[in-house]
Amino acid sequence: MVGGGRGAFIGSVHRIAAELDGQAQIVAGAMSSHPEIARESAAAWFLERTYTSYADMASSEAADREGIDFVIIATPNDLHYPVARAFLSAGIHVVCDKPLALTLAEGEELVRLVEAGPTLFALTHNYTGYPAVRQARDMVRAGQLGEIRKVMVEYTQDWLMEPLESRGNKQAAWRTDPARAGLSGCVGDIGTHAQNLLEFVTGGQIEALCADLSCVVAGRRLDDDASILLRLRGGAKGTLICSQVACGEENRLSIRVYGSQAGLEWHQQDPSTLIYKRAGSPWERLRTGQSYLRPSAKAVTRMPAGHPEGYLEAFANIYRGFIEDVRRVGLGQAPVRDYPGVQEGLRGLRFIAQAVASSRAGSVWLNL
Amino acid sequence: MVGGGRGAFIGSVHRIAAELDGQAQIVAGAMSSHPEIARESAAAWFLERTYTSYADMASSEAADREGIDFVIIATPNDLHYPVARAFLSAGIHVVCDKPLALTLAEGEELVRLVEAGPTLFALTHNYTGYPAVRQARDMVRAGQLGEIRKVMVEYTQDWLMEPLESRGNKQAAWRTDPARAGLSGCVGDIGTHAQNLLEFVTGGQIEALCADLSCVVAGRRLDDDASILLRLRGGAKGTLICSQVACGEENRLSIRVYGSQAGLEWHQQDPSTLIYKRAGSPWERLRTGQSYLRPSAKAVTRMPAGHPEGYLEAFANIYRGFIEDVRRVGLGQAPVRDYPGVQEGLRGLRFIAQAVASSRAGSVWLNL
Amino acid sequence: MVGGGRGAFIGSVHRIAAELDGQAQIVAGAMSSHPEIARESAAAWFLERTYTSYADMASSEAADREGIDFVIIATPNDLHYPVARAFLSAGIHVVCDKPLALTLAEGEELVRLVEAGPTLFALTHNYTGYPAVRQARDMVRAGQLGEIRKVMVEYTQDWLMEPLESRGNKQAAWRTDPARAGLSGCVGDIGTHAQNLLEFVTGGQIEALCADLSCVVAGRRLDDDASILLRLRGGAKGTLICSQVACGEENRLSIRVYGSQAGLEWHQQDPSTLIYKRAGSPWERLRTGQSYLRPSAKAVTRMPAGHPEGYLEAFANIYRGFIEDVRRVGLGQAPVRDYPGVQEGLRGLRFIAQAVASSRAGSVWLNL
Amino acid sequence: MVGGGRGAFIGSVHRIAAELDGQAQIVAGAMSSHPEIARESAAAWFLERTYTSYADMASSEAADREGIDFVIIATPNDLHYPVARAFLSAGIHVVCDKPLALTLAEGEELVRLVEAGPTLFALTHNYTGYPAVRQARDMVRAGQLGEIRKVMVEYTQDWLMEPLESRGNKQAAWRTDPARAGLSGCVGDIGTHAQNLLEFVTGGQIEALCADLSCVVAGRRLDDDASILLRLRGGAKGTLICSQVACGEENRLSIRVYGSQAGLEWHQQDPSTLIYKRAGSPWERLRTGQSYLRPSAKAVTRMPAGHPEGYLEAFANIYRGFIEDVRRVGLGQAPVRDYPGVQEGLRGLRFIAQAVASSRAGSVWLNL
Repeated sequence: MVGGGRGAFIGSVHRIAAELDGQAQIVAGAMSSHPEIARESAAAWFLERTYTSYADMASSEAADREGIDFVIIATPNDLHYPVARAFLSAGIHVVCDKPLALTLAEGEELVRLVEAGPTLFALTHNYTGYPAVRQARDMVRAGQLGEIRKVMVEYTQDWLMEPLESRGNKQAAWRTDPARAGLSGCVGDIGTHAQNLLEFVTGGQIEALCADLSCVVAGRRLDDDASILLRLRGGAKGTLICSQVACGEENRLSIRVYGSQAGLEWHQQDPSTLIYKRAGSPWERLRTGQSYLRPSAKAVTRMPAGHPEGYLEAFANIYRGFIEDVRRVGLGQAPVRDYPGVQEGLRGLRFIAQAVASSRAGSVWLNL
Repeated sequence: MVGGGRGAFIGSVHRIAAELDGQAQIVAGAMSSHPEIARESAAAWFLERTYTSYADMASSEAADREGIDFVIIATPNDLHYPVARAFLSAGIHVVCDKPLALTLAEGEELVRLVEAGPTLFALTHNYTGYPAVRQARDMVRAGQLGEIRKVMVEYTQDWLMEPLESRGNKQAAWRTDPARAGLSGCVGDIGTHAQNLLEFVTGGQIEALCADLSCVVAGRRLDDDASILLRLRGGAKGTLICSQVACGEENRLSIRVYGSQAGLEWHQQDPSTLIYKRAGSPWERLRTGQSYLRPSAKAVTRMPAGHPEGYLEAFANIYRGFIEDVRRVGLGQAPVRDYPGVQEGLRGLRFIAQAVASSRAGSVWLNL
Repeated sequence: MVGGGRGAFIGSVHRIAAELDGQAQIVAGAMSSHPEIARESAAAWFLERTYTSYADMASSEAADREGIDFVIIATPNDLHYPVARAFLSAGIHVVCDKPLALTLAEGEELVRLVEAGPTLFALTHNYTGYPAVRQARDMVRAGQLGEIRKVMVEYTQDWLMEPLESRGNKQAAWRTDPARAGLSGCVGDIGTHAQNLLEFVTGGQIEALCADLSCVVAGRRLDDDASILLRLRGGAKGTLICSQVACGEENRLSIRVYGSQAGLEWHQQDPSTLIYKRAGSPWERLRTGQSYLRPSAKAVTRMPAGHPEGYLEAFANIYRGFIEDVRRVGLGQAPVRDYPGVQEGLRGLRFIAQAVASSRAGSVWLNL
Repeated sequence: MVGGGRGAFIGSVHRIAAELDGQAQIVAGAMSSHPEIARESAAAWFLERTYTSYADMASSEAADREGIDFVIIATPNDLHYPVARAFLSAGIHVVCDKPLALTLAEGEELVRLVEAGPTLFALTHNYTGYPAVRQARDMVRAGQLGEIRKVMVEYTQDWLMEPLESRGNKQAAWRTDPARAGLSGCVGDIGTHAQNLLEFVTGGQIEALCADLSCVVAGRRLDDDASILLRLRGGAKGTLICSQVACGEENRLSIRVYGSQAGLEWHQQDPSTLIYKRAGSPWERLRTGQSYLRPSAKAVTRMPAGHPEGYLEAFANIYRGFIEDVRRVGLGQAPVRDYPGVQEGLRGLRFIAQAVASSRAGSVWLNL
């Protein structure tokens, strides 16, 4: 693992998720640019090899026959691109946090690198790992909703409702700093999760957007709230709302899809339930673990119905698909790529760029 | 009552709401332009006097010392203006369905008439009659949310998801007919309820909007879906989403308000509950009928907590305030006007006009 | 109306419920044994005739050709029997609050009176008036649940969690006084609603019970909490839990029925929803006002789906059935009796008597 | 691990839970009495050492300096006792599935063994691992509820609503077989979880019970449904309801506690939420991950609020406490025992025995 050292919440998420199914083990790390923290973090996880430079790690591990099969990048956004490039160039598969990179140009280069080479790349848009989200996607695909008419997606939080970045909070500091987070704060951090979820579930890409980004907390340099009108390929319309200043919200990610024959609704904070609304019929409450679900949902469910699975298990489902591909590629088989990759990363970067541009221009429609 | 005859759902809503507290009785009506239906409807309600023309009714009742104290207008939209004018001119107080009129010009004339004269006017934006909505308004007013930052209001239904207007449904026919419904379908019919609810609760008026209206069902002449970005006086931003083609939704009217210190959330389909989200604290579930509520909420609650009150009781609360004012005016006292009136009606018409104009111009920001 | 004067919550419930459909009007009353309160209460409701004695009222109204068609009894429990007897003897139909009487003997005499004579009798077990409850009953009747296996019914409140009866609360005083409330407090007041709901929905009578009644608040003379094991005719088992000291509960009445093919669940505080659980299928959320409901549910629904109806509307449904019967009997037709009557009242009295006896004997099984 | 081989759901639960925090690794196993399955299961988990006999495993591992620190027993109930005895006797710490043993006598011997020796013993009453359950316990302990008055605990499922044991289902077969499951089916399997949860949260032990057990499915040899009246030390009363034939229920484990000052409510299927009901106040919705929770809840929370944690994480919390104790004991420190142990196991066996005895005697009160 690169990054994710002591104090970084996402580091142990990656560790647990990667190891949950007993198919991988984290053995080496460059977990912090501070040597002390890097060493301590590695020791806390009983890592076999620790590095203070990701470049060293890439070259050493690539040179070692018993070196790592893949690397996990859990750094702030500005390092995603250089670290990913280093490992891809060394021929090591990559799992990387979103967003893919800081800029479109960087993102496009990573796309080229991945599409040229034999190395695999997974981007942890982890919410698509929930079984109920897989179920929703497959119901849309199978035409159970008819023609999609309207989509509403939301991701609201409140953790940045105060100016934490000026009160010593490291997470807040880099996430509100254009140099480290990129063009956007809220849209980049959570808006892209919502955008990715929407495109994953509907299978229909966003064609155009009209955005209104806000910087609610005084002195903040990046947006912390946004409302975005959407038009989807195929004619559906929709809204994407994201906020990091929505007082009282924890991690309220939800999606609603309305079609000509049925609707769907899912809430990340009640992740095992998917509501299915057929025209003229009672709402049905589909539940993870039940036998009536589609194979794709069952394939990523570990527990019988009624034993709640959560965020970590969904995250682990991204890893599960990726690790199966690593194994396939190792055996000379073709990868299946049942997880988000560079193309999804590039779409996210375009979404960020156009949302920022639309808002700056006074909320005009821009194509994606 | 004018309109509201056999087959019109809203007619008996008005009857029950007006009479619920035992302070008024419907005694006369011009309930349909079809003499037969007018007579039958009047008989079904045991009315003492029935008319086939609203103009006759206005003049006869005005001339009768024992004539009606106020009239209820429950006709399609195109008749609101002429009927209201007739009764106001005859010196009879008016309760009128929304929208106030078909056009801004008509609305402005009604404003002049009401503001000039001694007659009272109530517009049945009935959702503001719910005790929890009164509570929400007063909490905002008292500063319990701090500065308002973001507002999300929604009103979704599915009853027009099929082209009922071409299948003999009278309600659908007039509501999708520009000549009888006005400039807009969905925004006019339910969007204005959402707009009124938002302004009622926040006390802050909508300053500008950027709208995207859709005509989802093929062949329909008025919008049946809309997504609208909002800016409020004072700096808050928000969204208003309304739809009549949202498959599976019944009458999903909800509002969320996020402030710098707390948030509020209310759902019309669970009307006795108001969720209060103070920063850093557990969500609190305020319930109608409880002693901790504010006086304005208690004043419009009839039942102890846990005995659900609903749509009719909320509707009756608009009547309760209005009838108290009728009594006050009758005693020579000043009216209190604790219910929506012509000004709210005019704002609704402006909202409709600007939403339609913004959308036609390709979603541009327009002031209200 | 007899009883229900100023300060009695249930009085105006009866008034609103009786008049809601515009088919009856309260015109006379003996609303309090205090002449002053009786007069004031009658004036507040614009009653035409007021009495200070129910006996006078019964004889006067019976003698008057334009006298009342039926009487509403909304007194404390100890007066149900004498008042009901007086009006039944005078040939006036009766609507009476539950319980039917103070003792089984009184109840049995009322059964004889009603079954002998031409007069109608309705007992306001109002919760059976909810459309979703009618739906549940008809689904069980139609065999949609298969064989009933297990039933769970609950009615919990907290309004008596403090000794209000010793703090001047009149409602609490008579409800905890054996002389006025009868053998039981909590079981009599709300437990019988739960028992009636269970028998109404399942159609299967309680065959035996094993009860544990408690007097939680020190100094109280009647039970304020009970847990009761049940056996139903046909072999199903179940539990009935009621409490008036369940801190934080408002009016939590709920029922769950589990059969060999499906289950049902209903909560009074969300009354428009009925959950239907077919084996191996997603839960379905049936909603009042929808076209897929059974005729019996539709017949008592006034609003389109999504416009919440509540306690008053359910109460009014008991009156609706009763008033239709009053009209039928007036026309010489046979009554339909689609509302609880003396037999249901008698079962309630037996339930109370056996629950108290079982608990006193140390929780032994007693037949009902 | 002993047991838990291919096809046993609980095996991989234990593996994931034990390893989740990166503090333990499963390296050896006697995972099935079928040598083939034992080998395959061990290979699937990359185990270093595999055995076909638990006795061999106990002696070999005890003899090996690099042998296991503790064993996990995930067999059917009848093997808990002999396997536990073997490993305890060999000086190896034990984590064991509930129930502790088949009989009270066996359970008492395990208590003696554990209390005599230096070895640690954890019983996986995993539901007490949820952060919200720890929070509830500490709120009761701190007196936030006042005096406990009433407790309602429930655990309902439907997986045995058909006679799966006669259709080749192995899980169903041993769980309904007295020789392998013990005295009771439903009470033993899930009723004891409910009993343990109740005692854990209230800190007040069950003093007496009055039970009605049923064998709903024809031909079944053990109970599959039970309703039990409870009396707690200190005077509170309550009910415990469990069922494996409750059509439509997945794993509906819930607890409600009512005190003289407040109430609490928790549902396992929404595990991150704890409802707190203070007298006269709005319900508060406490959420896992929030800063206002008590230290004991925070100590077992891995994710920020709004990132759902579930069954596996709660299970892992039992392991976390146990592994910390293993480390402490290894360092010569005193264990903390913040997890269920043999005493809780013995109480569960007594609860089963008395529930069965009470029901057989016709629902009489028996002391625990």
